[in-house]
Amino acid sequence: MSIGDFKDPSLADRGKARIEWAARDMPVLGMIRERFAKERPLEGIRISGCLHITTETANLAITLKAGGAQLVLCASNPLSTQDDVSASLNIHEGIPTFAIKGEDTETYYRHLHAALEQHPQMTMDDGCDLVNILHKERPDLLEGIIGGMEETTTGVIRLHNMVRDNALKYPVLAVNDSDTKHLFDNRYGTGQSTMDAIIRSTNRLIAGRNVVVAGYGWCGKGVASRARGLGASVIVTEVAPIAALEAAMDGFRVMPMLDAASEGDIFITVTGDKNVIDRHHIERMKEGAIIANSGHFNDEINISALNDLSRSHYTARDFVEGYTLADGRTIYLLAEGRLVNLSAAEGHPASVMDMSFANQALGAEYMLHNARNFGPQVLTLPEELDQEIARLKLKSMGIKIDTLTEEQRHYLNDWQSGT
Amino acid sequence: MSIGDFKDPSLADRGKARIEWAARDMPVLGMIRERFAKERPLEGIRISGCLHITTETANLAITLKAGGAQLVLCASNPLSTQDDVSASLNIHEGIPTFAIKGEDTETYYRHLHAALEQHPQMTMDDGCDLVNILHKERPDLLEGIIGGMEETTTGVIRLHNMVRDNALKYPVLAVNDSDTKHLFDNRYGTGQSTMDAIIRSTNRLIAGRNVVVAGYGWCGKGVASRARGLGASVIVTEVAPIAALEAAMDGFRVMPMLDAASEGDIFITVTGDKNVIDRHHIERMKEGAIIANSGHFNDEINISALNDLSRSHYTARDFVEGYTLADGRTIYLLAEGRLVNLSAAEGHPASVMDMSFANQALGAEYMLHNARNFGPQVLTLPEELDQEIARLKLKSMGIKIDTLTEEQRHYLNDWQSGT
Amino acid sequence: MSIGDFKDPSLADRGKARIEWAARDMPVLGMIRERFAKERPLEGIRISGCLHITTETANLAITLKAGGAQLVLCASNPLSTQDDVSASLNIHEGIPTFAIKGEDTETYYRHLHAALEQHPQMTMDDGCDLVNILHKERPDLLEGIIGGMEETTTGVIRLHNMVRDNALKYPVLAVNDSDTKHLFDNRYGTGQSTMDAIIRSTNRLIAGRNVVVAGYGWCGKGVASRARGLGASVIVTEVAPIAALEAAMDGFRVMPMLDAASEGDIFITVTGDKNVIDRHHIERMKEGAIIANSGHFNDEINISALNDLSRSHYTARDFVEGYTLADGRTIYLLAEGRLVNLSAAEGHPASVMDMSFANQALGAEYMLHNARNFGPQVLTLPEELDQEIARLKLKSMGIKIDTLTEEQRHYLNDWQSGT
Amino acid sequence: MSIGDFKDPSLADRGKARIEWAARDMPVLGMIRERFAKERPLEGIRISGCLHITTETANLAITLKAGGAQLVLCASNPLSTQDDVSASLNIHEGIPTFAIKGEDTETYYRHLHAALEQHPQMTMDDGCDLVNILHKERPDLLEGIIGGMEETTTGVIRLHNMVRDNALKYPVLAVNDSDTKHLFDNRYGTGQSTMDAIIRSTNRLIAGRNVVVAGYGWCGKGVASRARGLGASVIVTEVAPIAALEAAMDGFRVMPMLDAASEGDIFITVTGDKNVIDRHHIERMKEGAIIANSGHFNDEINISALNDLSRSHYTARDFVEGYTLADGRTIYLLAEGRLVNLSAAEGHPASVMDMSFANQALGAEYMLHNARNFGPQVLTLPEELDQEIARLKLKSMGIKIDTLTEEQRHYLNDWQSGT
Repeated sequence: MSIGDFKDPSLADRGKARIEWAARDMPVLGMIRERFAKERPLEGIRISGCLHITTETANLAITLKAGGAQLVLCASNPLSTQDDVSASLNIHEGIPTFAIKGEDTETYYRHLHAALEQHPQMTMDDGCDLVNILHKERPDLLEGIIGGMEETTTGVIRLHNMVRDNALKYPVLAVNDSDTKHLFDNRYGTGQSTMDAIIRSTNRLIAGRNVVVAGYGWCGKGVASRARGLGASVIVTEVAPIAALEAAMDGFRVMPMLDAASEGDIFITVTGDKNVIDRHHIERMKEGAIIANSGHFNDEINISALNDLSRSHYTARDFVEGYTLADGRTIYLLAEGRLVNLSAAEGHPASVMDMSFANQALGAEYMLHNARNFGPQVLTLPEELDQEIARLKLKSMGIKIDTLTEEQRHYLNDWQSGT
Repeated sequence: MSIGDFKDPSLADRGKARIEWAARDMPVLGMIRERFAKERPLEGIRISGCLHITTETANLAITLKAGGAQLVLCASNPLSTQDDVSASLNIHEGIPTFAIKGEDTETYYRHLHAALEQHPQMTMDDGCDLVNILHKERPDLLEGIIGGMEETTTGVIRLHNMVRDNALKYPVLAVNDSDTKHLFDNRYGTGQSTMDAIIRSTNRLIAGRNVVVAGYGWCGKGVASRARGLGASVIVTEVAPIAALEAAMDGFRVMPMLDAASEGDIFITVTGDKNVIDRHHIERMKEGAIIANSGHFNDEINISALNDLSRSHYTARDFVEGYTLADGRTIYLLAEGRLVNLSAAEGHPASVMDMSFANQALGAEYMLHNARNFGPQVLTLPEELDQEIARLKLKSMGIKIDTLTEEQRHYLNDWQSGT
Repeated sequence: MSIGDFKDPSLADRGKARIEWAARDMPVLGMIRERFAKERPLEGIRISGCLHITTETANLAITLKAGGAQLVLCASNPLSTQDDVSASLNIHEGIPTFAIKGEDTETYYRHLHAALEQHPQMTMDDGCDLVNILHKERPDLLEGIIGGMEETTTGVIRLHNMVRDNALKYPVLAVNDSDTKHLFDNRYGTGQSTMDAIIRSTNRLIAGRNVVVAGYGWCGKGVASRARGLGASVIVTEVAPIAALEAAMDGFRVMPMLDAASEGDIFITVTGDKNVIDRHHIERMKEGAIIANSGHFNDEINISALNDLSRSHYTARDFVEGYTLADGRTIYLLAEGRLVNLSAAEGHPASVMDMSFANQALGAEYMLHNARNFGPQVLTLPEELDQEIARLKLKSMGIKIDTLTEEQRHYLNDWQSGT
Repeated sequence: MSIGDFKDPSLADRGKARIEWAARDMPVLGMIRERFAKERPLEGIRISGCLHITTETANLAITLKAGGAQLVLCASNPLSTQDDVSASLNIHEGIPTFAIKGEDTETYYRHLHAALEQHPQMTMDDGCDLVNILHKERPDLLEGIIGGMEETTTGVIRLHNMVRDNALKYPVLAVNDSDTKHLFDNRYGTGQSTMDAIIRSTNRLIAGRNVVVAGYGWCGKGVASRARGLGASVIVTEVAPIAALEAAMDGFRVMPMLDAASEGDIFITVTGDKNVIDRHHIERMKEGAIIANSGHFNDEINISALNDLSRSHYTARDFVEGYTLADGRTIYLLAEGRLVNLSAAEGHPASVMDMSFANQALGAEYMLHNARNFGPQVLTLPEELDQEIARLKLKSMGIKIDTLTEEQRHYLNDWQSGT
């Protein structure tokens, strides 16, 4: 059996137990797995996946394998790997997985290349790194690719940029664009797991703090809502006027980051952009301010500026690095500015990943049958599949809803009646 | 001066004061009015508008007139007219307005026809009644029409149905589809004004009540959020699985109306559909249950079933009709099942109508210049105008936001960098 | 039949209907009324009541009369009277009621004196005005008094001051001190009705506004919570450090009024103190700021300073007076600075007054039997009666709760077991 | 140096870093420590403390030692000890500490006895175990005791029971009764840390779950509020009617536990009572239900009944034990039913413990000077000290508040003015 690169085989059993625990809250993916095991829709298809190696991803991997796929995995972030899961995937599930928590950049990219070694027919990405490497460093493999799937907002933005530049060479499904993905995973998942990570790493009381949330997309909406739910006074920063107006009408204070900088106790970036917290912001921050990023890349906080401003730094707690500035203030950076929810906590809870990964699994099946009808573009899962995922999720939660009567269906299609 | 049909000229001064009060919270429309007064972009254009005759609509009308339009108005609902506003528009503003609160159906339609008498070049609708009458009863006028604007979700659905049936004969701009309209007006506007209307008409404490909200679109999201904000335990009913799942994840109970029927103290329909509260629901309701509709048409509650089930009814308070059922229970219907926020309160606050009607005013200008490039279809205001409205609104609220740096703009357009 | 002073007999029927509507949401008081009608515990006792003349108070009055009391009522605020209720009490219920909405100060005090003309054996106060007049101007009546009841925080503070100064001459029951009064009426009642009044009078959108709440006692907690529930960004001002800290931990911004003055869009005072919004605060306010008071007396806003600063004022809408300052800004004062929830809306909903007035009714019965055991001091209703009111209220709402098992009761009384 | 009993000296440095991290968010205690270091008010006083051995407690211990006290500590719960803190207290601070996470009952009590070996002059308790042992097993030490302090609700209830039974032999200060303790620690502290512990141990999404909170005291209010803030639909169970009514008016569903049992996804007990979740409740629970206790003793869940109903159990994750019932369902018990926030997370954040332990430190000083004026009864810290703690806390948060003007102070003391 080919095998990947992981930290410690003795962690495998713990990983297996935790994977099973996640499975209990992933009923939709579970139903797909049962069907896949019978129908084997992905029989023999080589899929290379670059994803956060968590208990939820393990369940997706097991599902794809149950459907017949030949799967190789690598981490989509150097800090997000759960080492016990990586061990269990390699040892118990026979899914070669190249992922070690805290791996350096060189290892990170070596692992990506390892995942490509099987000459994949499909790619599965979370942040577009695999697609990127493939196009730039392994163009020889492009011919064999049927299509791909992309999980996250940042990756989808990059794919659109690639299409604009005529750089993308095969069709990719934007899983993130499914309602059952971004409305839930990005909002409730990122919201809870980000605040969880901040509390786990700092054990700070959130009530009564000024929490600054940079970005009011679905992730930002989730984080702001949960921070308020924990008693914070929330400030939102934005560049888009409509989102800024929503934040204001939702009762949050809205201001430029430069003004927020001197008010915030805790800063969280979820913008998908670069240097959202920059040198001039850090210069204004209060003694003891805490900075975290929950966006995809560790680019949102200007860490090198933070380093420049500091005369030393020390580890205050796990995932909490205190930077002592020249003027004596200490600023705390969480999880090296990487996705804090995956680095300092366990990432999105299984219940939302259930839907996100149902989209991935159904997406793989859909792409296998339909990709050749499309050129190199960014696709969306058909609305019926999206709705079906929601229907199954509701059922698993024991929630019943109404159905349109014939009369109601007719009424909605009519235009002739009036006041 | 041609003149419309209104209740009482002695109300005109009070109307004028209230129109001015609304104007103070409509700064974006105010800026447009100033420009219109200078540029006269609608010079001589005949516009017939079928809208709720409120203080906010009056400000739209004044703006269009300032832009040169020849405007005639009629009510878009028999109960939503504010008689003092109708009087002031006719008397002070010289805008013929056909609208009397509580007018019967015959008068209602007579007023629609009156608004068409000027042979409009543009229509402005809230619920598609004017478009409907025009196509069905005055096809002779169709030829002269450049285009139209439609304000509300229900109207837009009808327009799409007309397009599907090849019935629509000229392009209509779906104002509702602008983000600065439906994200604000439908959510925060309907949310507040609906709860306001229920409290005004009943003076009931909301805290501790089971409030059932039928529909979890933007309006339903707004109403559910405000009901919770007032202390209610909220139940949501839905037919769409994704919206139902959102409601559940937002912490609301979700169930079929038949189950909600026996739990609810107050029921509010915002679905755009018919008989959402039907006979078998009413049969299960608790003694004293209160029913209200905040959707466009008075079709959402099966009022004739309620009548059938009742042996008598009486007026408990203004806009509160108590129906005594055969089994002795009393069920209260608010505002005859018509849009409760406009009938029993004053409709959406000026602050959100500011944006909705900025879309209407800019929409009229846009359609005048662009309608002829399109066939009979449903159009949307260009995104730049939508964003510009948000930008002006933020400015009027004294809220500043960030702008992308060159570096950030470049980063968002890039795809070559990675982890 | 002796008769009071009221505005218009033609309003009586409307008043009666509204009183009955309130009765439907006052089941606890209804149960007391039934028992009183049988037992006649207050037979022949002369009670003079100085209360807000609302539909809820009417139900208290009817209950006391059913118990045998000889009741005379007067208004406890010049603006809080509902004229239709005053008419109905006089005409239908035979309860002499001296109350006209908008009466001047001279009439107000004449009405207080009229209520004392029957030489009461008990007083019932809301704000201590009747007790005050009685002690200062009619000391001849003191000898005949058994005891009294006081409804509100401000009145209770005054009574304690009277006790401190040895001025109080008979025992008074602090109805406000019952948990079933202040935890509900002051919080949920004032919270909802205050925001209701602000919306009714202004029709302003609350979402996105800075609402400044002065005072974070039970009333302030209620108002702040409801303002946030409607989408406001809430600022709290306080003088008490513990309450201020609670406000901060509840996620509100806390700052001195002088800082809040330049941030607020809407100001609401609920402190029970004087000139909480004073000249130097008004001088800093934004154009268009709205000021309202929901505390007992119209002393919380320095209205004479507002007048001094203004060159003119005008009525923008009912209960909205615009003051044009010398520098051109306009500041809006609601309801002349009187209790806005009773002046511009209908006061607390019936559901909470049900409990407050159950305390009044049971309090009258309790005082009749127990007052002579006490000197001139401030008393509290026994805890068992307080709990019984809560128990009846829960029952009327269809809510069941657990009861302690024998084992649990024993456990709670034990101290010998440990970890 | 005398030394206690702890797990692993190699953990001491990590403990020290974490203790310092907590200190940064305990500014009020820090100010007290500075004064204590100068004034040495507890010079030579032997204090035995039975407290949760956390980073916050370590800071209290350091403060008391700075004040001159001779301190010996033991754990107040077998699962709440942080081993690195226990190590650091022993090694770095020279404070003998007897505490090992997961110690068995025999060791637990041996540690209590060890803490008494120094013949304390004062006791400091969290749950009354030390007072209990002292009175029952070491009555010889009673004579030397000046007084004690008790931290928590459960302990205070026990002390009152002891007073009732004439069992208490020396005065004890109820720290829990200070406003700056129970209004903050019990509400915001327990609220956040309990939800934190549930998320840490299970990584379950809270949004969309039915969370059942047993008890609506200050702790229950906190937990219910935070669960809602995370998106749960919350059900409250209670035995006290007034608290039940508050829960209902706060928008929660209220029902008996037997009804809640079949609805809940997650159950949290915070009642201070026994078998609140009993056999017949467990029998009704859904597959996969999660049960946790955040009350003081592990008596709230009937664990032996759970064992009786189960045919096996297994560890699903750290602190998550799955019980497989005879009928096939699996029910998950967190942290063996012990205080979940201290066992599966880190207990209350430093920011609230700052105030609780400021009460402890000032309480020790107060008792030293005043205890002899009182008999064996339950005392409360003087209100001025309570307010002073709040004042210092606000200052440390950079929050300013208003102060009464002379005019306002006079007004509040007056009773002669009126409407």
